[in-house]
Amino acid sequence: MRIRLYNARLLTMTQKEIVEGEVWIREDTIEQVIVKGTDGYTTEGFDQQIDCEKNLLLPGFKNCHAHGPMTFLRSFADDLPLQEWLNQKIFPAEAKLREEDVYILMQLAILEYLQSGITTSFEMYFYPEQIAQACKDLGFRVVLSGTVFGLEEPVTEAVDTLCRDYERFHESHPLVDYRLGFHSEYSCCKALLEEIAKLSRQYQAPVYMHNSETEKEVKDCMNRHGMTPVQFMDSLGLFEFGGAGHHLVYTTAEDRRILKEKGIYVVTNPASNLKLASGIAPIREYLEQGIGVAIGTDGPASNNSLNFFKEMYLTATLQKIRYQDAAAVAPWDILKMATVNGAHLLGLPFCDGIAPGRQADLIQIDLQKPNMQPLNHVPDNLIYSGSIDNVRMTMIAGRILYQDGIYHTSVEPIRIYESANRIIRRIAGSL
Amino acid sequence: MRIRLYNARLLTMTQKEIVEGEVWIREDTIEQVIVKGTDGYTTEGFDQQIDCEKNLLLPGFKNCHAHGPMTFLRSFADDLPLQEWLNQKIFPAEAKLREEDVYILMQLAILEYLQSGITTSFEMYFYPEQIAQACKDLGFRVVLSGTVFGLEEPVTEAVDTLCRDYERFHESHPLVDYRLGFHSEYSCCKALLEEIAKLSRQYQAPVYMHNSETEKEVKDCMNRHGMTPVQFMDSLGLFEFGGAGHHLVYTTAEDRRILKEKGIYVVTNPASNLKLASGIAPIREYLEQGIGVAIGTDGPASNNSLNFFKEMYLTATLQKIRYQDAAAVAPWDILKMATVNGAHLLGLPFCDGIAPGRQADLIQIDLQKPNMQPLNHVPDNLIYSGSIDNVRMTMIAGRILYQDGIYHTSVEPIRIYESANRIIRRIAGSL
Repeated sequence: MRIRLYNARLLTMTQKEIVEGEVWIREDTIEQVIVKGTDGYTTEGFDQQIDCEKNLLLPGFKNCHAHGPMTFLRSFADDLPLQEWLNQKIFPAEAKLREEDVYILMQLAILEYLQSGITTSFEMYFYPEQIAQACKDLGFRVVLSGTVFGLEEPVTEAVDTLCRDYERFHESHPLVDYRLGFHSEYSCCKALLEEIAKLSRQYQAPVYMHNSETEKEVKDCMNRHGMTPVQFMDSLGLFEFGGAGHHLVYTTAEDRRILKEKGIYVVTNPASNLKLASGIAPIREYLEQGIGVAIGTDGPASNNSLNFFKEMYLTATLQKIRYQDAAAVAPWDILKMATVNGAHLLGLPFCDGIAPGRQADLIQIDLQKPNMQPLNHVPDNLIYSGSIDNVRMTMIAGRILYQDGIYHTSVEPIRIYESANRIIRRIAGSL
Repeated sequence: MRIRLYNARLLTMTQKEIVEGEVWIREDTIEQVIVKGTDGYTTEGFDQQIDCEKNLLLPGFKNCHAHGPMTFLRSFADDLPLQEWLNQKIFPAEAKLREEDVYILMQLAILEYLQSGITTSFEMYFYPEQIAQACKDLGFRVVLSGTVFGLEEPVTEAVDTLCRDYERFHESHPLVDYRLGFHSEYSCCKALLEEIAKLSRQYQAPVYMHNSETEKEVKDCMNRHGMTPVQFMDSLGLFEFGGAGHHLVYTTAEDRRILKEKGIYVVTNPASNLKLASGIAPIREYLEQGIGVAIGTDGPASNNSLNFFKEMYLTATLQKIRYQDAAAVAPWDILKMATVNGAHLLGLPFCDGIAPGRQADLIQIDLQKPNMQPLNHVPDNLIYSGSIDNVRMTMIAGRILYQDGIYHTSVEPIRIYESANRIIRRIAGSL
């Protein structure tokens, strides 16, 4: 299958400038990127040719922290403090979840990802086999994250789970990969974290986790271990092969020195931090210190959407309030976080831009909508006025999965909605 | 012309519950609201019958503070501090604006309003006759605001302008109304404000203005007049017939007492306050004290969009950060601000809900999109995960102006985009 996307504006992310041109795709890979005016290109030998009508093509967004199957809890319990929300609403509902529910609920998340221009997500949730199957069946690219926890010894079961899932899912399918991960410092005993550090050395693999999301979490860790979560994890050897911390809202100068030195990425989740009143992460300081930043939606229970435009907008604008400086963090930095940094953090360098040999994970942004006009600075438009309403096409591994509001997936959206509503009605009815 | 919108979910805003039913419209007015299961209704005698497919109908959003024609400056100058942004970028560009440009640029704003489910806007900008004409030509409902300023006496010209525009536009057309207004305390001398207070008494009319947007503005006013802007305006008699202050980010307890006593509304513009790093308004305190709050987008130069979903989302979630409390401000309060309060603030009580005799200004929200599923709590979905992508139809005064992404307007959007791009190219080229 060869596809030609022509008459486009290209924001390849390998360079800052937007150029007019076209992209050729062979199977799952970008074959050629042709800048307008270049000689010697052909319009023959393609199975499909799509006129992009001068709209923008750019790499798809990488959602670097998510709990996709939590779609069933969207708007289920809002406007509650974090602990009450978790203990009285979220955990009891999750306890009623069945393995087969996760397959359906992940499909619902994928529909929303495609609507939002997200082409890869990093999923931390129970039943990874169901998540992987949903992604394979709908053609969505996923990186699964270990999500073990346990406050008491022995820790054998958690470690075995992590090993088994790593062996099962790591580089297991063109669309499915796996990374070592655990829930958080506050949900794991020291013995478990030490074992995970051993696994990291054994596989020479990066480790991912929730980290320093709330002020309370950092204080509690100081009380338990005399160190911040970042320093404690570093002391255990969890950062020797890279990885990332999700949230990192509260960090000290020493924490940031460690993150920089060990090449640990920050995944910021501004909508979740806002809605749960956790705080605003010091993104400008991370950028100034050369720490890599990427963006995540977190789960739909705490967000409540999986809208990457919202996350990009908030990542930029909340910094302006935090630092009382309208100049804090620029649109280009945000676009880099959303695409290049996300791909590198996830260990998918072949998804980091529009260039020959890269995976054909890209999106078309409709510039012919009033919220994108006039075309003063397209990157600014994307970040400050862009919307999921501008996503005209989402392509993953060369397959168009979403175009002009229509899903080209193996299951009809309406069936997924019906199933998701049945699941939450069953669960809510049994609480 | 009689239209029947059937098979809908109705959020009338006259009651909190969502009910299944239908809405009948005759010419520009809502004729009947039928709750499902009620006897004696007919399917005959309609010119058009629209199956809403169980989607949501609710009153259109009221954008209570806007400078629509500033669309030409969207993404023109981002990430600059307020004064540098105004003096070095915005004012020089505005100085090159021609009267006929405003007609085109307001049309562009209207397209974006319709895309966003906004059915009325309160417009503060130069050349009100061009704004009024653009709205009449496209079928959009507008309230024009006086926007005079002047730091030096004599003030006759500004007062004459205000009188002339009031006489010309006040209740001048089914879709066009006018309110007394001035730019701000910091751009007006005391003599001018005294004259405006006189006009307010003469017409028994409310007055509207920018008020206490930044900390600096309040401090400067304290230095000039020994009072906050709210107290100073109150002392001049500007609040005797109601009205509203735009922004009101920085207020004292005494300010809030005055606002409550005089029935002055607050129009909050969270996206603009965020992007320009102005601050977060104390909305929860306004609500607790029974002060009416409504919502505005401000101009697209400082926002950079005219996206009411973004404003509603930010109005709710920024309060959670401000008060470090996830329970601060609930979705129902936001929906009330966006519809009922907005209509009352603008002096358009006949646009405040879906009920017989009210103007047929309503929108259809597509619930069959992944970001709105499952249907746990529809108002929460609207505020926390809703998007302009969910706006399936926007109707004003009984006319469907936007439906399924298509504009039913007298001018093709592409022509408006072309003209808007020509205008900013001309202006940017001459700076």
